[in-house]
Amino acid sequence: MTGRLIGVGVGPGDPELLTVKAVRALAEADVVAHFAKTGNGSNARAIVASHMRPGVEELSLLYPVTTEHPTNGDTYRNAIHDFYETSAATVARHLDAGRTVAVLSEGDPLFYGSYMHLHVRLSERYPTEIVAGITAMSGCWSLVGAPIAQGNDVFTVLPATLPEEELTRRFADSDAAVVMKLGRHLEKVRRALNSTGRLKRAIYVERGTTANSRSMRLSDKPDDNAPYFSVVLVPGWEQKP
Amino acid sequence: MTGRLIGVGVGPGDPELLTVKAVRALAEADVVAHFAKTGNGSNARAIVASHMRPGVEELSLLYPVTTEHPTNGDTYRNAIHDFYETSAATVARHLDAGRTVAVLSEGDPLFYGSYMHLHVRLSERYPTEIVAGITAMSGCWSLVGAPIAQGNDVFTVLPATLPEEELTRRFADSDAAVVMKLGRHLEKVRRALNSTGRLKRAIYVERGTTANSRSMRLSDKPDDNAPYFSVVLVPGWEQKP
Repeated sequence: MTGRLIGVGVGPGDPELLTVKAVRALAEADVVAHFAKTGNGSNARAIVASHMRPGVEELSLLYPVTTEHPTNGDTYRNAIHDFYETSAATVARHLDAGRTVAVLSEGDPLFYGSYMHLHVRLSERYPTEIVAGITAMSGCWSLVGAPIAQGNDVFTVLPATLPEEELTRRFADSDAAVVMKLGRHLEKVRRALNSTGRLKRAIYVERGTTANSRSMRLSDKPDDNAPYFSVVLVPGWEQKP
Repeated sequence: MTGRLIGVGVGPGDPELLTVKAVRALAEADVVAHFAKTGNGSNARAIVASHMRPGVEELSLLYPVTTEHPTNGDTYRNAIHDFYETSAATVARHLDAGRTVAVLSEGDPLFYGSYMHLHVRLSERYPTEIVAGITAMSGCWSLVGAPIAQGNDVFTVLPATLPEEELTRRFADSDAAVVMKLGRHLEKVRRALNSTGRLKRAIYVERGTTANSRSMRLSDKPDDNAPYFSVVLVPGWEQKP
C-alpha cells in the first residue's frame, strides 16, 4: 500500500483563504512538503503555519541557486530539471513507504504552480488528489473590490515577460485581463496599457491579501518598481443591466 | 451605523471548498442572501447548507422569468435591470437597519458572478468586503488533475456563446483555455477545437466537484449535450523541465 499524494492549494497569502478541504488535508498528512528558495522561508509554509499538525514531518524542497545563469540557457534548464527529478524521487520514497504527502502550493496547484512539476512525474504512479486553491489574481481583485469579468467577456491572463507589441495586441483583443510576474516589466506593461486606452482602468496590487499588501490605480503609481508577487488587473466589466 | 455587505464566494460545488473566511462570514452574518431561479433552489445555498447559522434570516433573490424574451432584446434587458435594482434596494434596507448581509456567490464573487450586480450598486454606499472563492474552472481542472497553465503560457477564458470563427481564432492564439457556458454550444466549440488541433487535449467536465460530476476527454464524448454548468478545459502545459 503506497501513500497518497495531495497537491494542496494554500491561496494567495491570507491564512483564512485556505479551504476547509486544505485544512483537513494538512491534519491528515504524514508529510508536508514545500518549495522554497535557499535562504528564504517558504511562503506557502508561512501561510499554513497555524494549521500544521504538531510533530508532522516536513520536507523542504530547495530550488537550486541559478541566478548566475540565463533562464533561457541549457545550464539553467538542466539545473531546474534535475531539481524536479530529485524532488519527485524524494517524495516518491515517502509514498512508497505508505505515507500521505501534502505538497503545499501558493495559489492553486495546477495554475502556474511549482507543484505541477511533481504532479506530472508522480500522479500516474500514485493515488493523487488536488485541493483547489484561491489564485493570487482572485485574492487581488477581491481585496480591491474590482469586478473583473462578466457576461460574455473574454478574460486573459498574460505574463509580463511577453514582448511589448504582443502585450499591446492582447490587451486590445481582451475585455478583461490580468498581468502576472511583473518584476522589472512594469514600465513596458504601462506603455502597452496606455497605447490601448486601458491604463485608466488598470489597478496595481502588490502582495495581495498579505499583511504587506498595497494597491492603487496604476496611473497613480509614481514609479515602475514592482516585486515579483504583484499583478495588474484590467477589469473588463463596465456596468451592465 | 449601517451594516456591512459581504460578497461570499462559496466555490464550485463541494462544500469543503469553502474557505475558512467564508465559513466565518456565514457565522457572523445577520442576513444571508442568495440568488435562485423561480422554482429552483439556490445552488449556492445548497453548498453552504451545513454552515448556515440556525435561525439566521435568509433573503432569496428570485430571477424574473424571462425565457419567452430574446436575451439581446430590451424586454429582457429591462427585466434583469429592474430585478437587480429591486434586489439592491432590498439588501440596502437591511444594511440601513445595521444588519450585516452576506450575499452568496457560486465560484468567486467578482468573476462572472451575479453578486457583482449588487456590488456596483452598493459598495460605494456601504462598508463592503469580498471573500474570494474557488472558481468553477479551478474546481474542474483540480478534479481531473489537469495542469492548466505554466511558465509564460497565455491563458484565456472564453464564453461558448462567441461565434465559431472567433472561438477558432482565440484557441489558436492561446496556450491554455477554458470554455464556459457550454449549454447548446458544444458542437460549435468542438469544431473550433478540432480545426486548431486542440481537440485531442480538450477535457469536458460537467458539474465539477458536485456529487453528480462527470468528466471525459471531449473526443470521447459521443454527443453534444451539455448542461449550462459544464466547461471544456484546454490544458496549455506540455511537460516542461
